[in-house]
Amino acid sequence: MLRGLMMDRPLLVSSVIDYAAEVYPDVQIVSQTVEGGLHRYGYAQARDRIGKLANALVALGIKPGDRVATLAWNGYRHFELYYAIAGIGAVCHTINPRLFPEQITYIANHAEDTALFFDLTFLPLVEKLKPTLKSIKTYVLMTDREHMPADGQLNGLLCYEGLLAEMDAAFTWPEFDENAACALCYTSGTTGEPKGVLYSNRSMMLHTFFLIATRPDLFAHNRTILPVVPLFHANAWSLPYITPLTGCTLILPGARLDGPTLYDLMENEGAEAGWGVPTVWLGLLDEFKKRGRKPRKLAQILSGGSAVPQAMIDTFTRDYDIEVTHGWGMTEMSPVGTLTLFRPEERAKPPLERAALSARQGRRMFGVDLKVIDEKGNRAPADGKTSGELFVRGSTIVSGYFKNAEASAKQIDSEGWFGTGDVAKITPDRWLLIVDRTKDLVKSGGEWISSIDVENAAMACKGVANCAVIGVPHPKWDERPLLVAVKAPGAEPTKTEILDVLASKIAKWQMPDDVVFVDALPMTATGKISKKDLRAKFADYKLPT
Amino acid sequence: MLRGLMMDRPLLVSSVIDYAAEVYPDVQIVSQTVEGGLHRYGYAQARDRIGKLANALVALGIKPGDRVATLAWNGYRHFELYYAIAGIGAVCHTINPRLFPEQITYIANHAEDTALFFDLTFLPLVEKLKPTLKSIKTYVLMTDREHMPADGQLNGLLCYEGLLAEMDAAFTWPEFDENAACALCYTSGTTGEPKGVLYSNRSMMLHTFFLIATRPDLFAHNRTILPVVPLFHANAWSLPYITPLTGCTLILPGARLDGPTLYDLMENEGAEAGWGVPTVWLGLLDEFKKRGRKPRKLAQILSGGSAVPQAMIDTFTRDYDIEVTHGWGMTEMSPVGTLTLFRPEERAKPPLERAALSARQGRRMFGVDLKVIDEKGNRAPADGKTSGELFVRGSTIVSGYFKNAEASAKQIDSEGWFGTGDVAKITPDRWLLIVDRTKDLVKSGGEWISSIDVENAAMACKGVANCAVIGVPHPKWDERPLLVAVKAPGAEPTKTEILDVLASKIAKWQMPDDVVFVDALPMTATGKISKKDLRAKFADYKLPT
Repeated sequence: MLRGLMMDRPLLVSSVIDYAAEVYPDVQIVSQTVEGGLHRYGYAQARDRIGKLANALVALGIKPGDRVATLAWNGYRHFELYYAIAGIGAVCHTINPRLFPEQITYIANHAEDTALFFDLTFLPLVEKLKPTLKSIKTYVLMTDREHMPADGQLNGLLCYEGLLAEMDAAFTWPEFDENAACALCYTSGTTGEPKGVLYSNRSMMLHTFFLIATRPDLFAHNRTILPVVPLFHANAWSLPYITPLTGCTLILPGARLDGPTLYDLMENEGAEAGWGVPTVWLGLLDEFKKRGRKPRKLAQILSGGSAVPQAMIDTFTRDYDIEVTHGWGMTEMSPVGTLTLFRPEERAKPPLERAALSARQGRRMFGVDLKVIDEKGNRAPADGKTSGELFVRGSTIVSGYFKNAEASAKQIDSEGWFGTGDVAKITPDRWLLIVDRTKDLVKSGGEWISSIDVENAAMACKGVANCAVIGVPHPKWDERPLLVAVKAPGAEPTKTEILDVLASKIAKWQMPDDVVFVDALPMTATGKISKKDLRAKFADYKLPT
Repeated sequence: MLRGLMMDRPLLVSSVIDYAAEVYPDVQIVSQTVEGGLHRYGYAQARDRIGKLANALVALGIKPGDRVATLAWNGYRHFELYYAIAGIGAVCHTINPRLFPEQITYIANHAEDTALFFDLTFLPLVEKLKPTLKSIKTYVLMTDREHMPADGQLNGLLCYEGLLAEMDAAFTWPEFDENAACALCYTSGTTGEPKGVLYSNRSMMLHTFFLIATRPDLFAHNRTILPVVPLFHANAWSLPYITPLTGCTLILPGARLDGPTLYDLMENEGAEAGWGVPTVWLGLLDEFKKRGRKPRKLAQILSGGSAVPQAMIDTFTRDYDIEVTHGWGMTEMSPVGTLTLFRPEERAKPPLERAALSARQGRRMFGVDLKVIDEKGNRAPADGKTSGELFVRGSTIVSGYFKNAEASAKQIDSEGWFGTGDVAKITPDRWLLIVDRTKDLVKSGGEWISSIDVENAAMACKGVANCAVIGVPHPKWDERPLLVAVKAPGAEPTKTEILDVLASKIAKWQMPDDVVFVDALPMTATGKISKKDLRAKFADYKLPT
């Protein structure tokens, strides 16, 4: 090989905050705090505090490679931990506080976390869990001295602001191999124990670059962006890296994510873009309707985590002049795989025609390769018809799970691609269509029914606030679809009305055999509808014959 | 080290054209051809032809690591060579046809080029040089069969389109180490022999990412971009990579870069942005004035290669509503180091106030570290006052020159930084100000006079079309500045008028001791004013006493 003669410098996430501090010192991070009120500072001040935190971590004995856990909302201290932990060469292990306590214990022990930083909210939880946490030696409450518990049950509990107060802001980042791990996130795992995805400095930086390069318009001119997607969930889709790098203002909403609170924060802080899962946007849309308008500057929503119903995209587009970008990905993919990406001729179309394309899962992000493998094990053509399991490959995709060779082997194929567990097809013009999760497909007499297709149709029915379709056992067809629906406030849709609407939108063999109404749908820890719980609940449901 | 568990995939430039072919198949590359007329095709068709070319290169016996030279203008075949050569693991060596023939010979022999692809324009040159070119075995004329010479003096001369006609479009790119060289460019070298900069796939991809991440707005929404900067000059500032990646339309102007031709091309093809050196923009501005307007869609100019006069930026801004982005860099830096980059509070200013900032060399691109070393060898503070030699560091910067250990050693300091040969200072708010090239400074009695400062002031004088300031020997002060000026067509500025204007803009000790008028300034092969030639011409000039 003839080697290029360029400097051999590692890609390290610590370089991002240094760049922001220098080039965008006064661009703000605004945080809705757990203690109450808003906290504001610029990237230069953030860098100073990150330097102090890095000094504190070293003083606490945290070593390169150590896993440091967080249980925290979207706030500035959590942001600081991202950079300080990764900057000293340790691994920021973000734990989803919405998991069952036993899962948190499992994850913290499996990761062998040595320290835990947590928000005030989680003090009771941590007190309860402490006896089960085997490796954590250091507990730090992410608050100031005024809010420290007077009689806590945690011996030696440290105060975050107390630690920083004693430290120097100067901290020169060490240089190390760009393949060194910088973050760890466990998938909530609908089957089996949670599995750890260990990101490297390189993969995190490349994911950041790939996303900006694929959709530079999303980050042009120092946008004001509000991630509802949690910092504890798949690196908040890279926003903690992209916003400082591109000088975007970051609005961190803290713990309160209900429609009215989110609306007020967006309105007051002039959020131009919001990133989060569809259920959050449904709540926000309700608030739009109540107030008769959107937050004044909101013009873009990025929605990912689960399929976005066409009806929702249309409402945002038509009634509020908000462009919805639909993303698809996985924790295992850093997380973005595909996102709405228009060709120039598509962008020239009227907004509602464009919106019809946005219900698709998007086109591949640069750096992510896609292949669909049909039932026979062959690579399916991009014909928009042939579906199969979606496999992905790229620098931002897991090669295996942390300390779990067995799970790794299951999901990596012989060519080194990662099996997503999604059933998908790709159109000739390269839109990805996720048909369903493999396990959510309704297998009806040898035919597959996409639960997503039926749900999308049902969401367009007046009076349906939310819904899910699951397969329930059927004596003749193996499984048949059951529609589980939540009524909108004040609405009283009937089963017949809904089925009438569906009959005009989907094929007869896809029609649900029954409709049941519930007050609320069970949710997973990452804010998705838990079909696993629904299937358990309706396992013995008797469909009408 | 705890290694992240992400796929180990190389960054290769070949992935860019595959992405564009898939995601932006119909986005156009429009070329003004050497044969006459315009050529148009989309990225998908470009990829097909690049596949054929790659097959042809392999059939010609080109091996990974081989240097393949080009002598060509900005056209689609040159673009194809960029990707096909790099894609098979070889090195695309772009030679500047404006160099002296002896320099071309030196460069081709030093690089040990094995093949040469050249435009019709250069057939006489290549015929003349052939006896001196030691390593080139294959000569390919970049044209179709109709334009092949009937009685060429080059035995075995191959026809580009003839080669492609016989080949299959299918070509799967090999995978190899991302540090493998992909391109080679020699600096024109004002002293000594030209020196080779050998770029790697990694450095080229990172430069592309760094530039997009630093200024995403420049590439948002599939802009139409016209690089006047040649493909043979420092990778045309990464545009051959950025435009396909971001789905931008690429307008390649070919050989004719005069004001009227460029204007027509921009007008007819709807160019929204143009990238090139200041002298090109001076020519284009003349054309604006003649026609009384700008090309209809032109809204952005990126100017680099030498300092951009404030007067020019102001004219573009005030009279034509065109935003000028000023870039600074070097062939050794891939090439971008800094570029105009506004903080939000700066962008909020009126256009002419912003324009005043754009005369500075910009803020650092992400991924490029800057340090200024003062006369005593200490790191200068970013105080906007202390100047010294500028050193740079980053993944996109040379670690040494190709087969030239001596030159490498001279320009890399003990900490591994590259010495740029520029004298610079950095303001507290992180704007880079290039004071001068070290060798262009006028050393007057122990004080340094920046030739750039005086030139900028002189360019604002009515009737001055272009100018340069050089130091000429002076018995008392060692050197004193001489202003060499070109009059604008029809204007008759006098020495006294010019000195009067200057006296209001610069300090007395900076004032030129004399003004001489010339018909034209000598230019280097890369379109910069050759001060070396000017100094030689005026070496014996007697300043008035």
